[in-house]
Amino acid sequence: MSGAAEPSAGNMTSKDYYADSYAHFGIHEEMLKDEVRTLSYRQAIQNNPHLFKDKVVLDVGCGTGILCMFAAKAGAKKVIGVDMSNIIDQANVIVKANRLDHIITLVKGKLEEVDLGLGPNGKVDIIVSEWMGYFLLYESMLDTVLLARDKYLKPDGIMMPDSATLYLSAIEDQEYKEEKIDFWDDVYGFDYSCIKEIALREPLVDTVELRSVVCDPAPLLHLDLMKVRKEDLTFKSKFKLTVTRNDYVHAFLGWFDIGFEACHKPVRFSTGPHSRYTHWKQTVFYTPGTLTVFEGDVIEGELTCAPNARNPRDLDISLAYKLQGKNTTEARMDYKMS
Amino acid sequence: MSGAAEPSAGNMTSKDYYADSYAHFGIHEEMLKDEVRTLSYRQAIQNNPHLFKDKVVLDVGCGTGILCMFAAKAGAKKVIGVDMSNIIDQANVIVKANRLDHIITLVKGKLEEVDLGLGPNGKVDIIVSEWMGYFLLYESMLDTVLLARDKYLKPDGIMMPDSATLYLSAIEDQEYKEEKIDFWDDVYGFDYSCIKEIALREPLVDTVELRSVVCDPAPLLHLDLMKVRKEDLTFKSKFKLTVTRNDYVHAFLGWFDIGFEACHKPVRFSTGPHSRYTHWKQTVFYTPGTLTVFEGDVIEGELTCAPNARNPRDLDISLAYKLQGKNTTEARMDYKMS
Repeated sequence: MSGAAEPSAGNMTSKDYYADSYAHFGIHEEMLKDEVRTLSYRQAIQNNPHLFKDKVVLDVGCGTGILCMFAAKAGAKKVIGVDMSNIIDQANVIVKANRLDHIITLVKGKLEEVDLGLGPNGKVDIIVSEWMGYFLLYESMLDTVLLARDKYLKPDGIMMPDSATLYLSAIEDQEYKEEKIDFWDDVYGFDYSCIKEIALREPLVDTVELRSVVCDPAPLLHLDLMKVRKEDLTFKSKFKLTVTRNDYVHAFLGWFDIGFEACHKPVRFSTGPHSRYTHWKQTVFYTPGTLTVFEGDVIEGELTCAPNARNPRDLDISLAYKLQGKNTTEARMDYKMS
Repeated sequence: MSGAAEPSAGNMTSKDYYADSYAHFGIHEEMLKDEVRTLSYRQAIQNNPHLFKDKVVLDVGCGTGILCMFAAKAGAKKVIGVDMSNIIDQANVIVKANRLDHIITLVKGKLEEVDLGLGPNGKVDIIVSEWMGYFLLYESMLDTVLLARDKYLKPDGIMMPDSATLYLSAIEDQEYKEEKIDFWDDVYGFDYSCIKEIALREPLVDTVELRSVVCDPAPLLHLDLMKVRKEDLTFKSKFKLTVTRNDYVHAFLGWFDIGFEACHKPVRFSTGPHSRYTHWKQTVFYTPGTLTVFEGDVIEGELTCAPNARNPRDLDISLAYKLQGKNTTEARMDYKMS
C-alpha cells in the first residue's frame, strides 16, 4: 500500500513507530522475495548442519521467523527468535503451521528487556540475524545484535553473518540527477530551489547500473562481527578512488558486502552495482557540483558517519573530497539519512 | 528514502504521525511529478482567470503551495493555504522565492483550529484542494474540505474540483495474483498461508494494463462537491458488470475520475486503466477464488465502504458479488485499506 505505518490507537513514541512500521507485512514480503539475501542465509545455515546440530540458536529481529526455521531444519536443538514488532504474532502462527514449535520459541519485546528462557547465565551457540539497513547502518539493528552477542553468545560461539564491509565509489549520473535534483530549479515555472537543497543532502537509495561506475571501489569500513563494538559504528574513513575512464562524476556511491566466514565453505553476497538486485539497492550521495575526471585521476577524501544525536536510527554522513588531476576540485557535503 | 515518516523528538499520536509523514518531501515530489494531476489543476485554474480575478481563494492541504501559486498567477486577490504538515515551512520559502507572498498567506495547523485572517464571518470565493487518496477516499482530506466549504465558502462560491466519480470493473490478473497472494503458500518450502489471508484482505494499489480489464466499468459513487455531506462518504452501492470476453476474473478493480465542471471549458481527468499513469494508480481487490466468465455474463454485487471506526483514515470495504452465467459463483470479502 502506501508504505505508511499502521497507526496505533494511543500515543506513539518514535520507537513505537519503528516497531509498528515493520509490523506491516509489505516489508517482510520485500525481504523474503530478495533471493540474494534469503538464499544466502539459507545456504549459510542449511549447508552447515555440522555447525547447527544440537545447538542453541538466537535470531535477533526474527521477523516472520524464516531464519529460525532454516536453523531448525539445519538441526538446531533450540531456536529463540526475538522481535519487538507485531509481525512476531504472525511468526508464531507460521512456526506452528510448519510444526517447528517444539524447537522454535518466539519472544516478543526488546532484546534488552525480554527473558529468553535460558536460565541464569544461559548462553547460545550461534546468533543469526539479518540486521543490515541501507548503507549497512541506516536503521540497522546492529547495536542490538552486539548487545545480544556480549550478553548471550558463548566465547566459542558463532555469529552469522560474521563479516560486513562498506564500499565507496563514484558514478556518472547526469540524467537521474537532473530528474531528482535539478527538477526543483523549475517546477511548472516556479522556483523550488529550497527543496533542491534538502534533496541534495538526503542520500538516495536506488539501483545503479555498473556502467555508471567511473572509479575503482574503495573499502570504507570492515566489521568483524565477533569483535566490533558499538563505538566502532561511529567512524571516520579516508578513501582514495582511482578514475577508470574519462567521464563526469555526479555522485558518490555506497554499498556493502556480507560474509558468513565461519561456514564450511564461506558464503558471501554483495549489494554492489556489479551484483544481482537486492532490496538494499545502492546509496547515492550527489555532489553539489559535477567533477570532470580523466582516466588515472585520483579522488581522495574522508567519509565520517555517526548516528544522529536526536534519532540514533538516522545517520549523519559527511563527505570531504579532493579531485587531483587536470580539473582540481575540492568540496565537502553533509548528508542525513532519515 | 524508505518512505518512513520523520520521527519527532517527543511523543507522536497517530495524527501527529500523519502530519509528519507528509512533511517528508518525497510524497510531494511524487505528486508534483504526476503531470496528469498537476497539469489538470493548472489548466483548471490558469485557463480560467475570469473566475479568479480579484477573488479570495482557499487551498485546503496546500503542501508545497503549487495550487496557491497557480491561483495567484490566475489573478486572485488573496490566496490562503492551510496545511498541518511541516512542508508548509518550505512552502513559505517557495512562495517568497517566487515573489507571491503579497498575495499568498500560508497558515500552519488544522483547518478546524486555525484563524484564516478573514475576520468575523469572512468567506472565500473559491476553494481549491487536491484531497484525493487511493480509491478516492483512503487517507483522503475530503472531510476537512467539506468542513472548509460549510464554514468558509460563499453561497455562490466555487469548489475546484467539484466532481468525483468512483468506478469498479473486474480484471484477469493470474500472474500477479500468484506473485502477490499465492506466493505465501510456499515461502522457501515453508507454509506462510496466514499471511496470505492478510494479503488477500488488503487492497493493492498498483497499475493495471487496460488489456487486463474484462468487464465494462460501472460507476459506484458520484460526488457533487458542492452538495456532498460527510455522511455520504459511508456508502453502499450496487453494481452490475457485463463481461466483454471469455476470460477469468481474479480481482475487482477500482479507480476514480475528477472534474472541474465550473470551468469555462470543463477540465477532467481519470485515474483509470485506460488513462495515463497517475500516482493514484488503480486499486485491486483480489477475489478469494477465480471466476470463469463468458462474454455477456453479468457480475452483480454490492460494495460497502466506511471509514474504520478506530482509525478514520483507514477504509473498511466489503464486496459481495454473484456471477450469473454458465459458472454461477457467489462470494463476499471484507477488505481493509490501511
